[in-house]
Amino acid sequence: MSLAPWRSSLARALHRNRSLVYARYLQLATVRPDGRPANRTIVFRGFLEDSDQLEFITDDRSEKIVQIQHQPCGEICWYFPITREQFRIAGLLSLIAADEPNETLRKARQTMWQNLSDAARLQFVWPPSGEVRSPNANFSPNPPDAIEPPCNFCLLLLDPTQVDHLELRGDPQNRYKYDKAEDGEWHKIEVNP
Amino acid sequence: MSLAPWRSSLARALHRNRSLVYARYLQLATVRPDGRPANRTIVFRGFLEDSDQLEFITDDRSEKIVQIQHQPCGEICWYFPITREQFRIAGLLSLIAADEPNETLRKARQTMWQNLSDAARLQFVWPPSGEVRSPNANFSPNPPDAIEPPCNFCLLLLDPTQVDHLELRGDPQNRYKYDKAEDGEWHKIEVNP
Repeated sequence: MSLAPWRSSLARALHRNRSLVYARYLQLATVRPDGRPANRTIVFRGFLEDSDQLEFITDDRSEKIVQIQHQPCGEICWYFPITREQFRIAGLLSLIAADEPNETLRKARQTMWQNLSDAARLQFVWPPSGEVRSPNANFSPNPPDAIEPPCNFCLLLLDPTQVDHLELRGDPQNRYKYDKAEDGEWHKIEVNP
Repeated sequence: MSLAPWRSSLARALHRNRSLVYARYLQLATVRPDGRPANRTIVFRGFLEDSDQLEFITDDRSEKIVQIQHQPCGEICWYFPITREQFRIAGLLSLIAADEPNETLRKARQTMWQNLSDAARLQFVWPPSGEVRSPNANFSPNPPDAIEPPCNFCLLLLDPTQVDHLELRGDPQNRYKYDKAEDGEWHKIEVNP
């Protein structure tokens, strides 16, 4: 398949900001079951092979699971400090869990687990995030298996349908909107910043 | 009034990250009228005097206006790169527009306008953001009056009801949740990161 037309701009931003670890951090907005928005920082983990889907990881004990099951639309906001540009990417979120039937996705989940750092893997055997912290809670458990992901480990995918790219450095500024049509084709327009 | 208990942690983060201009940038999540989330970077402009309300600015031609009118709950996500900590602040959003009846808020809107840079003020007389860009669009208009804000200039306030503070630097990590009760009192608990 051919890459979406916004991919080259995003690749350029990632490259030019690569000296900052946190240039791979972005904010994911979801909607809570009660209709209020939620927003948190997550780490970009790459693209699912042969696709435009962004990869992230999450724990199935996280609050965002219920939010995504209730409203699968999400929007990430990604600000790149060095090049002063922002990508807003809206699309459908999907969770690839331990019971994933699709073999390609099951394999992608396993590969993601194997590529994580030991420190990142350890968080999946920590006590449940967001619960009242007990003085006896064990945050130094035995490391989990490095090959087979634990049941609570999820691959989170975002399949983009709209991208809004703002370059603050332009004079005045430049802004482009990309929309994915029903037939899968992307359309790009230049809009006022 | 006494400041909310999370204010000192936030003030410390702002101080320790002050060398980065973009440490004052954060992401605001809102909900679109069709139920999908929206997310964009905005600039923290300070606190409304004698309150815990965060101040931002916006243009009344922006898409977020309709979103906020439809769902006034918002959540900001604020990541501080130097100290590696995140504040998620949820609360009620309110727009202080040209027709604001409350005198204190009307004055706060005017003061905010007067404190903006010339460049920031100029954006409020640009062609409408998000519309198809015309080759003839004028992005170098005459500067607007520096004293009296134009009709489309809005002060945006976030009145927090929940704060989630995560410190990634701890070992393992530290996370605190603050909730505002009906009586206005804040309650703090330590939770699992």
